[in-house]
Amino acid sequence: MRVKAVVLEGVGDVCLRDIEVAGTAEPGDNEVRIAIKTVGICGSDVHYYQHGRIGDFVVKEPMILGHEAAGVVSAVGAKVAHLKVGDRVCMEPGIPDFSSRETLGGHYNLDPSVRFWATPPIHGCLTPEVVHPAALTYRLPDNVSFAEGAMVEPLAIGVYAAFKAAVRPGDVAVVAGAGTIGMMVAFAALAAGCAKVIVSDVATAKLDILADRPGVVTVDLNREKLADVVAEHTNGQGADLFFEASGSPRAFDDLMEVVGRGGRVVLVGMPHDRVALDVVALEIKEISVTGIFRYANVWERTLALLGSGKIDLKPLISATYPFEQSVAAFQRAAQQNSSDVKIQIAF
Amino acid sequence: MRVKAVVLEGVGDVCLRDIEVAGTAEPGDNEVRIAIKTVGICGSDVHYYQHGRIGDFVVKEPMILGHEAAGVVSAVGAKVAHLKVGDRVCMEPGIPDFSSRETLGGHYNLDPSVRFWATPPIHGCLTPEVVHPAALTYRLPDNVSFAEGAMVEPLAIGVYAAFKAAVRPGDVAVVAGAGTIGMMVAFAALAAGCAKVIVSDVATAKLDILADRPGVVTVDLNREKLADVVAEHTNGQGADLFFEASGSPRAFDDLMEVVGRGGRVVLVGMPHDRVALDVVALEIKEISVTGIFRYANVWERTLALLGSGKIDLKPLISATYPFEQSVAAFQRAAQQNSSDVKIQIAF
Amino acid sequence: MRVKAVVLEGVGDVCLRDIEVAGTAEPGDNEVRIAIKTVGICGSDVHYYQHGRIGDFVVKEPMILGHEAAGVVSAVGAKVAHLKVGDRVCMEPGIPDFSSRETLGGHYNLDPSVRFWATPPIHGCLTPEVVHPAALTYRLPDNVSFAEGAMVEPLAIGVYAAFKAAVRPGDVAVVAGAGTIGMMVAFAALAAGCAKVIVSDVATAKLDILADRPGVVTVDLNREKLADVVAEHTNGQGADLFFEASGSPRAFDDLMEVVGRGGRVVLVGMPHDRVALDVVALEIKEISVTGIFRYANVWERTLALLGSGKIDLKPLISATYPFEQSVAAFQRAAQQNSSDVKIQIAF
Amino acid sequence: MRVKAVVLEGVGDVCLRDIEVAGTAEPGDNEVRIAIKTVGICGSDVHYYQHGRIGDFVVKEPMILGHEAAGVVSAVGAKVAHLKVGDRVCMEPGIPDFSSRETLGGHYNLDPSVRFWATPPIHGCLTPEVVHPAALTYRLPDNVSFAEGAMVEPLAIGVYAAFKAAVRPGDVAVVAGAGTIGMMVAFAALAAGCAKVIVSDVATAKLDILADRPGVVTVDLNREKLADVVAEHTNGQGADLFFEASGSPRAFDDLMEVVGRGGRVVLVGMPHDRVALDVVALEIKEISVTGIFRYANVWERTLALLGSGKIDLKPLISATYPFEQSVAAFQRAAQQNSSDVKIQIAF
Repeated sequence: MRVKAVVLEGVGDVCLRDIEVAGTAEPGDNEVRIAIKTVGICGSDVHYYQHGRIGDFVVKEPMILGHEAAGVVSAVGAKVAHLKVGDRVCMEPGIPDFSSRETLGGHYNLDPSVRFWATPPIHGCLTPEVVHPAALTYRLPDNVSFAEGAMVEPLAIGVYAAFKAAVRPGDVAVVAGAGTIGMMVAFAALAAGCAKVIVSDVATAKLDILADRPGVVTVDLNREKLADVVAEHTNGQGADLFFEASGSPRAFDDLMEVVGRGGRVVLVGMPHDRVALDVVALEIKEISVTGIFRYANVWERTLALLGSGKIDLKPLISATYPFEQSVAAFQRAAQQNSSDVKIQIAF
Repeated sequence: MRVKAVVLEGVGDVCLRDIEVAGTAEPGDNEVRIAIKTVGICGSDVHYYQHGRIGDFVVKEPMILGHEAAGVVSAVGAKVAHLKVGDRVCMEPGIPDFSSRETLGGHYNLDPSVRFWATPPIHGCLTPEVVHPAALTYRLPDNVSFAEGAMVEPLAIGVYAAFKAAVRPGDVAVVAGAGTIGMMVAFAALAAGCAKVIVSDVATAKLDILADRPGVVTVDLNREKLADVVAEHTNGQGADLFFEASGSPRAFDDLMEVVGRGGRVVLVGMPHDRVALDVVALEIKEISVTGIFRYANVWERTLALLGSGKIDLKPLISATYPFEQSVAAFQRAAQQNSSDVKIQIAF
Repeated sequence: MRVKAVVLEGVGDVCLRDIEVAGTAEPGDNEVRIAIKTVGICGSDVHYYQHGRIGDFVVKEPMILGHEAAGVVSAVGAKVAHLKVGDRVCMEPGIPDFSSRETLGGHYNLDPSVRFWATPPIHGCLTPEVVHPAALTYRLPDNVSFAEGAMVEPLAIGVYAAFKAAVRPGDVAVVAGAGTIGMMVAFAALAAGCAKVIVSDVATAKLDILADRPGVVTVDLNREKLADVVAEHTNGQGADLFFEASGSPRAFDDLMEVVGRGGRVVLVGMPHDRVALDVVALEIKEISVTGIFRYANVWERTLALLGSGKIDLKPLISATYPFEQSVAAFQRAAQQNSSDVKIQIAF
Repeated sequence: MRVKAVVLEGVGDVCLRDIEVAGTAEPGDNEVRIAIKTVGICGSDVHYYQHGRIGDFVVKEPMILGHEAAGVVSAVGAKVAHLKVGDRVCMEPGIPDFSSRETLGGHYNLDPSVRFWATPPIHGCLTPEVVHPAALTYRLPDNVSFAEGAMVEPLAIGVYAAFKAAVRPGDVAVVAGAGTIGMMVAFAALAAGCAKVIVSDVATAKLDILADRPGVVTVDLNREKLADVVAEHTNGQGADLFFEASGSPRAFDDLMEVVGRGGRVVLVGMPHDRVALDVVALEIKEISVTGIFRYANVWERTLALLGSGKIDLKPLISATYPFEQSVAAFQRAAQQNSSDVKIQIAF
C-alpha cells in the first residue's frame, strides 16, 4: 500500500513523501481505520531525526515518524463493538502480542514483542490514515479536542507514573525535571491526589511555564537546593514521593535525603549510565524505588482526567503546523526552544 | 478541676455550666494544653442530645459534648518538640493506648481502649481549655482558619475513606448519601484522584449544595435511577469505587449492579440491621468491600489538602454561635434544616 | 469434525458416543493440539449431569463434559515457541477474548466473553484430543503426573484465593467448608504462608481426610463452635483470614466475630440467595471482603507449588476409571460418597 | 542498680562483671521483668567486640552486649493484661517512642528515637534479669524452646523481608548471601509461599548447611553463574523476588538480569559504599526495589511459623555456653568458623 507520510530517511533527513508500506487500508475483524487529525512531535521523534537511534533502536530503513495521535474513525472491523465510523478517538501506539504472558498478567507494556509506532523498524502514524487495533483506540470525551487527544500519549506516562506511585491523598511529591514528561508527571501527580508537587530543574524557562499552576512549587537548581525546599514544605519530614523525570544522574545524589521515611520513588527518566544508589539510606528509611516503561491500562483514565478539567494541557501546545509543512515542524522541534513544550502537526 | 462546659445532662437536656472533671490544667510531658477557638457540632453530638445513646454507648453521667475542635496552644509539656505556645492547631479526638497491639500495627483507631471525646463516658471539648497528647495535635497551615480547622475531623473521615479505597487517578466513584459525611467523602475522593464523583440521595436540598462543584454529578433518587446515571458516565462499565455514606439498607440493593468489575466498595454509613449482600454478584465481578471506623494517620494529609486549596469547606459552615449561646447552637443543629451543613461554636 | 466424547444429553443422561463438533484437528498459529491423558470430574460436571443447569447456564444441546485435564502435546501451531510435540501439559479451561478490556487489565477471568469448557454452550474436554490456545497450555514439571496435572484446575482456585487474600507469613486462616474446593483452599493457604488453617464443616468424613495434615486444625460443627476454636488458636484476636468455601449462608452468621481486626475475607462458595452482612461489625474491625471468580494468572505458580512438593494432592484421588467407563465414573461421582474427593478418567 | 553482665569495655575487650545501670528491677505499669534463659550472639555483637563501632554507632562507654533473648516472666506491671509470672517469652529488642509519628504510622522501627539493646549507648540483655515493655514481650508457643525463642530476633528479619516482598504463592526467589541472615531470609521466604529459593554465596560451607533443605537450590559462585541457575529454574523468565543479604556490591552487578519483569527486590545487607544501579534495566522490567531496617509487627507471626513447624532452626544452633563462660562464647563467635551459624549463651 502506497501512502503519503513524514519519513525519516537518515540522520538529519526527514521529508514528506509517498512510501510503500505493508498491509492494507481495510481493517481486520478487531481493527479500525482512523483518519488522522493531529500528531504531536515527541522528543523521541526528534532524537531519531537528529541521531538516527535511541540506544539499541537504530533506524536502518526509511521510517514513518510520529506516535502521538488523534483522529476520526473512518472504517470499522466486523467484530468491533465499542467504536463506529465518525467517532473522535486517540490511539495507544504500542501493540502487544495479546496472548503473551505479559499481556495476560496485566502489563502488556512489558511484552518484549510490542510493536510501537515510530520505534524502528515499526512505522509511525504521520500519514493521513492508519489501521489500528480497536482495543487500543479510545473515544475522546466531547470536550477534548484533537490537539488535546494527541497529548494523551505523553500525559499517559505521567498518569501511569502516578498510578505506580500509588499516590495517597495529601502526599507531597518531588518531580525532578521540568521537561515535557516532568510536566506531565507533575500534573498527573496533582490530579492523582498530591497536595503539592515540587518541580526541580536547571531550565528556568521551563520552570516559569509551571510557576503559576496551583499546587506546584518550582525549584531553580541554579539558585536553590532541592533539599532545603523539600524540608520547608514537609516540616522536615521529607517528600512522600519522588518522580525522577530528568534522566540526570545528579538527581540521585540527594534522592535519599529528600525522600522521607517510607517514601516511594518512581523512575521515569533514563540516565545513560548506571547511577550510584545509597543502599543503607534506602534501608534505614525503607524507601521503595520502582520504574515505569511507557504505560499500561491508563488510557481511559487519562482521558477521564482530561475530560473532567482536572488537567489542562492546552497552554502547552506551543505551535501547530499543517501536515504539508511537517518538515518545518520538525526543524522547529529540533531547535528545542526553551519556551516550546509541544509542537503539533494538524491534518 | 472545675471547668465551664457544654454539658449533656440527659435526653434533650444540654446546658452551659461549671462541671468538675478529672485531671489538671498542666500538660504532662508529652501533652499540650489548647485554648479552644472553634468547635463544630457533629451529628453524633446531636444524636446523644436527642436520644442519650448511640448503639451500645449510653450517656449515664453528665458529659461534655464536642469533638471537632481547633484552637491555640497555651502550654507545652516537657518532651514536646514539634509544638510551641501560640501555635494554631486542631486535635484528633480519639486517644488510643499508644503501646497497644493495634497502635503498633498502624491502626490505632481499632484499639478497643481508645478514649474518644464526647463518646460516653469520655468528656468532649466544648470547654475553654483542653489538655491533649501532642502526638494528636496538628499545626494548621497559615491559610487554614480555626473554622476550617474544626472541620478537619469530619473531613478526615472522607480522606480516610478515599485512602482505604486506594483511589487511582481517573476513577469514577459513587457516593451514596449527601449528608455531611457524604459530602466530605465526595470532596476527598475528588481530591484523591477521581475524575468524577456521582452523589446520590433523596435529600434534594443537600444535592443542590453539591450541584455546582466541579467533578460532582448529583443523582436525585426521587427522580432518577442511580444505575442509569452510572452507566451513562462509565460507558456501561460501572463505577470503579462506591462509598456507602447513607447508612440506608436501600443503598445495598443495586450496589453490585452499579459497581464495575474489580471495583472497590468502602462502607462508611452504619445501617441499623444486617443488610442483604449478593455474594455471587460480588464474586463474578471480584468486587472488594471494606469499611472504615473513624480514621488513622490522615490528619496531616487532610490539613495538607485543605491548605493546598484542593478542598474548600468554607461554604459548608452554615452558622456560627458564640460559646455563651451553645445551647441555641444545639437547638439549631437539632432542627436539622435541610440547607444546614455544619453549625459551629466559636470561643 | 467427528469426535468420540463423554456427552451430556440431558438431565441424568450422560453417554460415551461420537459427536460432531465445530473446528478442525489442526491447531491455528497460536494453538496446540493435546492428546488427553487424564480428566478429573468436577462438582460442576456432576451438577450439570444431575440438574442440567447451574444458575443461568442451562444445557440446551448435547454438551461434552470435563474441564480438568492433562495430556501430551501432539501438534503445534506455527507461532508457538514455548511448547513442542511430546510436552506433558495441563490446560486452563477458560478462553477469553485476548484483546478485551478485562484481559488487558490483568483479569481475563472477568471477561464476559470467556468460553469455558463444559459450561453451556461450550464443549468440554472429555474426548481424546483437543485444540487449545498455547498461551493457556502449561508444561508439567517432570515430577508432576498427569493425574496431578488434572488436579491443577481445582487447586488453581485455592491458589488464586490465597493470592487474592494476600496471605502474609504466619497468618491464621479459617476455611469454611471441607469439600474439594475447601481442601484446595486450605492447602494453598498453608503453602502461601499461613501458619495454621482452621477448616470447619459438618461433614465429619471430609474433616477426617484433612485431620493429619500439618498445620490443619479441623472443626466439626456438629460438636464444636468455630468461634471457640478460633479464639483458642489466635489468643482471642480472631483469624487473619477467612475463606468461605461452603456456599452456606450459615457461614456468614459468625463471620465478623471469627475474623480479627483488619482481617480479610475471600468468598469462594456461591450461596443461592443473598446473605445477611453485619456492616457495623465489618466497619468497627475494618474487615475486607472480596470474592473470586475462577482464577487468572496462577497456573504457572500452582504447578511450581505442586512441583516443589509443598502441596501433595495424590491422596485425594479416590478412584480412576478408563475413558471407556466414563459413564460409570459419572455414576460414582454422582453418589457423592463422603470419603470420595476426586474421581478421574484416564485415557 | 548493680547487675552482673557481659560488658564490652573496648575494642577486643569483653568481660563478665558487675556494672551499675540506670533503672530499677521493678517493672513500670506497662512493663514486665524477665529472667533471661538464653541469649544468642549476633554478628553485630561480634562486630562491636572486634571493632568498637558499626558505622556511626560508636561504643564510648562500657556497654552490656546481647539483644537476641528468651526467658521467663518474673514480675508484671500493674496494667499488663496479656502476660503473667512464669510465662515463657522472647523480647523484641528495639523500644520506640510509642506516640511517635512513625509508631502511629505502623512502622515503629523507623522511629529515629528507637532505643535498641546493645546499640550504643543502650545496654543489651546479657544479664540475668531485664525490665522490658510488655507490648514488646511475646509468649513462646509450648513447643518452642528458649533456644529457639532466642532465634526469633534474627528470624524476624527474614520474616519481615518476606513480608515486605509481598511473596505470592509459587514465587521463585533468589537470596544473595548464605550467612545467618541469608539463611533466615531463605527459610522465611519458603514459609511465606515461595516454591523455590535459590541461595548464592562464595562460602561453600554455608551453602552446604542449606543444601538438603526442601525447596532450596544453592549456587556456589566459585563455580556457577547465578544468572544461569536462575534461568534454568524459571524457564528463562527470571526470578520473581530477589533478597540481597550479602552486603556485597557484587550482588548488584547482575541483579537486573536475574530478576524477571515486574520482579521485586528487598535489600537487607548493608554495603559500605553506594552501589551502581542500572536504572534503564529497572525501568524496562518495572522492577521494584525496597529495603528493610530491622522489623516491625512480625514477632507474633514469626513465633506462629516456628510453632507450626514450618521453619526449623534447631540445626543452626552450633554451640551453647553457660553464662559464666560468656567470654569464651564471644571468642568462639569471633573466630567465625565457616560451619558455625549461631552461638548461644544459656543462663
